[in-house]
Amino acid sequence: MESMMIYMPIALAALGLIYMLVKKSWVMKQDAGDGKMKEISDHIYEGALAFLNAEYRLLAIFVVIVAVALTAVSFIVPTTHWLIVIAFVFGAVFSAFAGNIGMKIATKTNVRTTQAARTSLPNALKISFGGGTVMGLGVAGLAVLGLTVFFIIFFHVFMDGVWTTTMDMTIVLETLAGFSLGAESIALFARVGGGIYTKAADVGADLVGKVEAGIPEDDPRNPATIADNVGDNVGDVAGMGADLFGSYVATVLAAMVLGNYVIKDMGGAISDGFGGIGPILLPMAIAGAGIIISVIGTMLVKIKNNDAKEAQVMGALNVGNWTSIALVALSCFGLCIYMLPETMQMNFFGEGLQEISSMRVFYATLVGLFVGAVISSVTEYYTGLGKKPILNIVQQSSTGAGTNIIAGLATGMISTFPSVLLFAGAIWASYAFAGFYGVALAASAMMATTAMQLAIDAFGPISDNAGGIAEMSEQEPIVRERTDILDSVGNTTAATGKGFAIASAALTSLALFAAYVTFTGIDGINIFKAPVLAMLFVGGMVPVVFSALAMNAVGKAAMEMVEEVRRQFRDIPGIMEGTGKPEYDKCVAISTQASLKEMMLPGLLTIGFPLVIAFVPMLFGMSHVAIAEMLGGYMAGVTVSGVLWAIFQNNAGGAWDNAKKSFEAGVEINGEMTYKGSDAHKAAVTGDTVGDPFKDTSGPSMNILIKLTCLIGLVIAPILGGHTSDEGLANIDDEVSIEMTVKSKDMAKATVNYTSIKDGKKVSEVVVFEGTETEVKEELEAFESTVKNETGDIEKVIKNVDITKE
Amino acid sequence: MESMMIYMPIALAALGLIYMLVKKSWVMKQDAGDGKMKEISDHIYEGALAFLNAEYRLLAIFVVIVAVALTAVSFIVPTTHWLIVIAFVFGAVFSAFAGNIGMKIATKTNVRTTQAARTSLPNALKISFGGGTVMGLGVAGLAVLGLTVFFIIFFHVFMDGVWTTTMDMTIVLETLAGFSLGAESIALFARVGGGIYTKAADVGADLVGKVEAGIPEDDPRNPATIADNVGDNVGDVAGMGADLFGSYVATVLAAMVLGNYVIKDMGGAISDGFGGIGPILLPMAIAGAGIIISVIGTMLVKIKNNDAKEAQVMGALNVGNWTSIALVALSCFGLCIYMLPETMQMNFFGEGLQEISSMRVFYATLVGLFVGAVISSVTEYYTGLGKKPILNIVQQSSTGAGTNIIAGLATGMISTFPSVLLFAGAIWASYAFAGFYGVALAASAMMATTAMQLAIDAFGPISDNAGGIAEMSEQEPIVRERTDILDSVGNTTAATGKGFAIASAALTSLALFAAYVTFTGIDGINIFKAPVLAMLFVGGMVPVVFSALAMNAVGKAAMEMVEEVRRQFRDIPGIMEGTGKPEYDKCVAISTQASLKEMMLPGLLTIGFPLVIAFVPMLFGMSHVAIAEMLGGYMAGVTVSGVLWAIFQNNAGGAWDNAKKSFEAGVEINGEMTYKGSDAHKAAVTGDTVGDPFKDTSGPSMNILIKLTCLIGLVIAPILGGHTSDEGLANIDDEVSIEMTVKSKDMAKATVNYTSIKDGKKVSEVVVFEGTETEVKEELEAFESTVKNETGDIEKVIKNVDITKE
Repeated sequence: MESMMIYMPIALAALGLIYMLVKKSWVMKQDAGDGKMKEISDHIYEGALAFLNAEYRLLAIFVVIVAVALTAVSFIVPTTHWLIVIAFVFGAVFSAFAGNIGMKIATKTNVRTTQAARTSLPNALKISFGGGTVMGLGVAGLAVLGLTVFFIIFFHVFMDGVWTTTMDMTIVLETLAGFSLGAESIALFARVGGGIYTKAADVGADLVGKVEAGIPEDDPRNPATIADNVGDNVGDVAGMGADLFGSYVATVLAAMVLGNYVIKDMGGAISDGFGGIGPILLPMAIAGAGIIISVIGTMLVKIKNNDAKEAQVMGALNVGNWTSIALVALSCFGLCIYMLPETMQMNFFGEGLQEISSMRVFYATLVGLFVGAVISSVTEYYTGLGKKPILNIVQQSSTGAGTNIIAGLATGMISTFPSVLLFAGAIWASYAFAGFYGVALAASAMMATTAMQLAIDAFGPISDNAGGIAEMSEQEPIVRERTDILDSVGNTTAATGKGFAIASAALTSLALFAAYVTFTGIDGINIFKAPVLAMLFVGGMVPVVFSALAMNAVGKAAMEMVEEVRRQFRDIPGIMEGTGKPEYDKCVAISTQASLKEMMLPGLLTIGFPLVIAFVPMLFGMSHVAIAEMLGGYMAGVTVSGVLWAIFQNNAGGAWDNAKKSFEAGVEINGEMTYKGSDAHKAAVTGDTVGDPFKDTSGPSMNILIKLTCLIGLVIAPILGGHTSDEGLANIDDEVSIEMTVKSKDMAKATVNYTSIKDGKKVSEVVVFEGTETEVKEELEAFESTVKNETGDIEKVIKNVDITKE
Repeated sequence: MESMMIYMPIALAALGLIYMLVKKSWVMKQDAGDGKMKEISDHIYEGALAFLNAEYRLLAIFVVIVAVALTAVSFIVPTTHWLIVIAFVFGAVFSAFAGNIGMKIATKTNVRTTQAARTSLPNALKISFGGGTVMGLGVAGLAVLGLTVFFIIFFHVFMDGVWTTTMDMTIVLETLAGFSLGAESIALFARVGGGIYTKAADVGADLVGKVEAGIPEDDPRNPATIADNVGDNVGDVAGMGADLFGSYVATVLAAMVLGNYVIKDMGGAISDGFGGIGPILLPMAIAGAGIIISVIGTMLVKIKNNDAKEAQVMGALNVGNWTSIALVALSCFGLCIYMLPETMQMNFFGEGLQEISSMRVFYATLVGLFVGAVISSVTEYYTGLGKKPILNIVQQSSTGAGTNIIAGLATGMISTFPSVLLFAGAIWASYAFAGFYGVALAASAMMATTAMQLAIDAFGPISDNAGGIAEMSEQEPIVRERTDILDSVGNTTAATGKGFAIASAALTSLALFAAYVTFTGIDGINIFKAPVLAMLFVGGMVPVVFSALAMNAVGKAAMEMVEEVRRQFRDIPGIMEGTGKPEYDKCVAISTQASLKEMMLPGLLTIGFPLVIAFVPMLFGMSHVAIAEMLGGYMAGVTVSGVLWAIFQNNAGGAWDNAKKSFEAGVEINGEMTYKGSDAHKAAVTGDTVGDPFKDTSGPSMNILIKLTCLIGLVIAPILGGHTSDEGLANIDDEVSIEMTVKSKDMAKATVNYTSIKDGKKVSEVVVFEGTETEVKEELEAFESTVKNETGDIEKVIKNVDITKE
C-alpha cells in the first residue's frame, strides 16, 4: 500500500478530472437560451477562441525557441538532461490546455447562467459556479497529473525507480523544473497579455461608447462590446487560471526539492515505507488530497432561496471555502504523520542540524492555510464596499479627482503593512517549525485548495458575462437583477482571489528561492558583497519598470481600439440605429494583436534580466559561485519589490473601483447624499480609470514576474552550481570531501572523495595521498589547484579539508 | 606639516564660515525695498521664525528624550560611552543652527532680490544666489567643523591623540556616530515636518483662494498666502539643508569607519605622516577641500547681460557647478596620493586580502562624482520641460485626468530604470576599485560639493519668494518677469537638486550599511536565513507605508488650513475688498502645529521599527549575532525600497508639475495649440495635485528614512556586536584568537588571546592551556562554553580556533 503512494496523486488527479468532465457535460446540457442570447454568446465564445488561437500561435513560436535553447544548454551542460525540454513543452501544453478548458467552459456557461436566471437564482448560481468548478478542477487536476507523471517517469529514467542518492534525485527534480518553467511561461502570456487585452478592450469600449457616443455599457451597437466581454474571460479566467496553475506546480516542485534536502540532512537515505522518499512525495500527496477536498467543497456551494441576496450567496461560497481549508488541515495532519519519519534532521542555516518532528511540519502547513485565509480578509478590508478605507476615498472624492487619487494611492500603499507583516511572520514561523521545507509545505498546503479558489474566482466573470448577455439580449429586469447579485459577489471574490494569488506567488517564490540556493550549493546570499547588493537594487527596480511598461501597454492598445471603434461608427451606416451590424471581430482582432504585441517588452524584461546577470559575467570569467549569489540577490530584490507592488497596485485598484461603485447606491458626503453623476462621482470615475490597469494588468502581472524570475533562476541553477562545462570535477559542496589523517610527522594520509562527470554521468571517485605530512599537503595543494582550474572555484574544496589526527 | 593635517578640515571649514559671514553681511546690506515689500517680507520672516521656534520646542523635547535614552544605554552597555550623548546633542544643535542660518538668510534675501530685480537681472541673480551661498556654506561649514572637532576630542579622550588599535578607534567612531544621529534627527523634523508644512499651506491657500474665492496666487487678501511663502522656505530651504547636512556628516563618518577597517586589514597599524590614520583623515580632508572649492564655484556664478534669459542663468550656474566638480576631482587625486599609503591591503568579502593602490581609491571618488553629475541629467530628462516624457504626459492630458495620472505614474516608475542601474553600477565599480572604503569615498567625493549644490538649490525658493513679494506688493511687470526667469531656473535646479539628494542618501546609506556590518563584526548579511529574509520584506514595506502616512498627513493638515481660511473670509469684514486685514499668523500657526503633529506617526515608524527589531528578540534570548543580521536585512530592505520610492515619487511629481507648466506657454495636442484653462490643462492641474505631496513631502522624506534607519542601526551596532551587558568577555571577531599547537600526541598547547571588559575598559588577556591533546581540547571546550554563557555567542570563538602542528 505505502509503496503505491507515489501513484496516489495521479489517481486523485484523474478522479478530479473525471468529476470535471461529468460536471462539464452537465453544464453543457443546460438550456443555452434563445436566438439573440445564443448569438451574443457565440460572439464571445468565438472572440475568446480567436484570442486563444492567436496566443497559441505566438506561444508555439516561443516554446520552440526556448526548447531549442534548452536543448543547446542540455548538450553543453552535462548535468542538464535533454529530458528537461520534453518537460518544458509538456508544462506549456498542459497549462495552455487547462486555460483552454477554462475559457471554453466559461464562455459556454455565461449564456446558460443568463437563461437559468430567467427562472431562478439558485439555478443561476448552480450553473455559474458549476462552470467555475470545471475550470478549477481542470487547472488543479492537470497540474497534479502532469507533475506527478513526469516525476515518476524521471524517477525511473534517472534512478530506476529506487532511491540512490540526493544527487541523483537532484537531477530528477532539476529536469522536472522544466515542466514548471513551461507552465509559468504560459502564465506570462496569459496573465500579462490577458491583462493588457481586458483593459484595452474595456477602456476602448468605454471611451468611445459611453463617453463619445453616449450609449450604455454592454450595448450591442458598440463594436468593442464583444471584445470587452471576451476580455473578462481572457483576463480573469484564463489569466488567473494560468497564474495559479503555475503557482501550484512551482510550489509542489519546490517542496519536493527541499524534501530531497531533508533526506540529505538525514544522512543521504532514510528508510520508510515510501521507498525512502516520503518527504519528497508528501507535497504531491497533499496536492492530490486537495483536489478531492475541493470537489467536496464545491458540492457544498448552493443556495435554496430564490429571493436570496448577496450575503446568502457569499455565505454559500464561504461554507465551501472554509470546509475545504479545514479538510486540507485535517489531511495535512494525517499525511505528515503517515508519510514523514517521526523525527527528521534538518540543517538550519548557521545553527546546524536540528531534530524536527513530523508534527512541526504539520504546524508549518497550518501557517500556510492561515496566510491563505487571512490575506483574503486583509484584501477585503482595504477594498471592500462600506469599509473605512473605501469610505475615506469616497469622502476625498468630494474635493476632486486629485484628492480621490491621493487617497486611493495611500490606501494601496498602507495595505502593504498588514500584508507584508503577515508574509514576514509566515516566513519566520514556517521556517522556525521546519526550515525551508516548512516554508515550501506552508505554500503547498495553501495551494491545495486551488481548485476551490479558482471555482470561486471564475464564477465572478461568468456571472459578469451573464449580466452582459442579459443586457445585450434585452431580458426582463429581474434577470439582470439576479445576475447582478452574482456579479456583485463575484467582485468581492475577485479582490480576495487576487490576494490569494499574491500570497501564493509570494510563498511560491520563497520556496523556489530556497530551492535555488540548495541547487546551486552556495553558502547563502550575502548582501554585504557589493555585487550582490547591486543586484538586489536592480531586482527591486524591475517590478517597478515592468508595471510602468504594462500600464503604458494598456494605454497604447486602448488607443488602437478607440481608433477602430470611431472608424466603425463613422463608416458603417445605420450602426447607431441598430440597423447596421458592427464588426465585432475586427475589435477582437485589434485587442488580441495589440495585447500580444505589447506584452513582448515586459516579457523580455522578465526573461532577459536573469539571463544577462547569469551569463554576461560568465563571459568575463567571473566565478560561478559569485554569479549564483548575485542572481540570488536579484531574485530576492524582484520578490520583495514585486510583492510590495502587487499588493499596492491590486488594493489601490480595488479600492478605487469600489469607491466608484459606492456612488451607485448613494453615499453620504459631508451630510449630503451623493449619487451617480455628481462631481464627486466623476472624480471617483477618474480614480477608477487609474485603478483599472493597476488591478487588472500591472498588479496581477507581478505574480508572474516574481515566480518566473525565481524559476528561471532555478533552471539556471545547475549551470551555476559549479558544474564544469565539460567532463571533469564536480565541486558541489557535499560531493567533495577530503579527509587527512596524520599518524606521525612522517606518516600522513589524505583521502579525497569527489564526484566527477564522465560521459555526462556522475561518478564517485576516491584518491588517496600518502607520505610525510609535507608531501601530502603538497599533493593536496596540487590537487586543489587542478580542481580550481577545472571549476574556477577553490574555496568549496578547501573548506572540506578535514584533518584528523590519530 | 603632515601631522597637522588633522586640523586642516577645521581651518577650511572656519574659512568657509568666515566667507559665509562676509557674504551674509553683504546681502543684509542690500536695499530691502519700500514699505509694502518690507512688510510682506517681515511677515514671511516672522512666519518662518514661528515655524522654527515651534519646531525647536518640539525638538528640545525630542533631544532630551533621546539623550536620556542614550545615557541609559551608555551605562548599561560598557562599550557605549556617555560622550555619545554630548555628540548627539551637538549634532542636533549644529544641524538646527545651520537650518536657522539658512531660513533667516533666505527670508531676508527674498525681498532684496525683488528690490534688485527692479533695476537689473544680474543684480537680482547676484543677491539671490548670494543668499543661497550663505545657506550652502553655513550647512557645509558647520557639518565639517562639528564633525572634525568632535573627532579630535574623542581621539584624545579615548586614544590620547595617538593611534593604538582598531578597537580603540572603533570606540572613537562609535561615539562620533552620536553627532551624525543628532544631525539626522533634526533632518527628520525639518524634512518631513517641513514637507508637510509646505504642501498643507500650498494646497490650503489654493483650494480656498484660487478655487473658491477666485483670487490669484500670492494675493495678499488670501490669509494663507504668507504661510504658503513661508512653506517654500521651510520645505525647500530648511528641509533640503537639514537633509544634506545629515548626508554630509553621515557620509564622512561612514568613510572614517571604513578607513579604520582598512588599517585593520593592513595589520592593525600603518606608518604614515598622519599619525598612522591617513585613511581615516582622508574623507574629512576631502570634505574640507570641498568647502573652499565651493566658495570658488559660487564666485563664478554671475551674468552680465540685463536681457539674459533662462539659458544664460542656467549656464552661469552650470559653470560654477562643473568647475566645483572638476576641482573636487583634482583635489581627490592630490589627497588620495598624498594621504594614503601607496598600496593598501583590503579585505574583500569572500575573496580575501587584496592589494589596492591609492590610485584606485581615487578612481572610486571619480565614480561618486560621476554619479552626482549623471543623476541630475537623468532627473532632468524625466522631469524637464520640453523633454519626451513631459510631452507624453501633456498629450495624455487631452483624454482626461485619468490618463494624465497614469502617464505621470508610469514616467516616475520608468525613471527608476536608469537611476537604479546608475546606483548599482556605482556600487559595483567603487567597490571593485577599493572595497566598501571605495563606496564610502565615492559618496564623500560626491558630497564635497554640497555647499555649491545647496547654493544652487536654495536660490530657487528665494527667487520664488521674490516673485511672490513682487506680486503681493504690486510691482511693475518687468520685476515679476525678471524674478520669473530666476524662478524658472530654480524649478529645474530644484528637480536636479532632488536627484542629488537621493543619490547622496543612497550612497550614504550604503556606506553606513557597510560601516554597520563592520561595527557589529558579523560575517555579512545572509538573506537565505529566513528571519533575515523576513526582515528584508518588512524593511521593503516601511518606505511604502511611510510615504502613505506622509501623503495622508498633507491631506489632513491642508483640511485644517482650508477651514481656517474659510473662517477668515467669513468672519473678517472687508477682507475681500482689501480693507480688512487677514490674520496671516493664524494660518502660519495652523500649518506649523499640523505639520509637526502629523510627522509624529511617520517619525515613530522610522525610529521605532529598528528598535523593535533589535530589542524585542533580545528579550526572547535570541543571539546578538542573529539579531544584527536581521537588522541588517531590515536596513537593506528600507534602503532598496526607499531609494526606489524616492526616485519614483520625486520624478513623477516633477513630471506632473512641468506638464502642467507646459500649458502656460501653450502646447500642441493633436495638432491644436492648447493653453491654460483648457480641459487638458485642468487634467494636468489634477495631476499636479497628486504630484505635490509626491515631490515635496513623501518623496524627499525617503532620504531621511533610509539614512536615519541606517544610522540607528549603526548606533545600535556596538550593542549587537556581541559586547556583554556586564564585565566579561568581548567576543568581537578580531579580538579573540585561539592558537593551538600540537607537538606530539602527548604535548599540545593552545594559546587564547581575548579581550575582556574590566571597569568599562577593554583589557587584552592571554590564557594558555597545556597537556595532552585531549586534555587541551577539553579545556578549550570548557573555556568556550564560558564564553558562550557570557556572550551568548559561541560561533565567533569556535571559528578562530587555529590548530598548528609543529
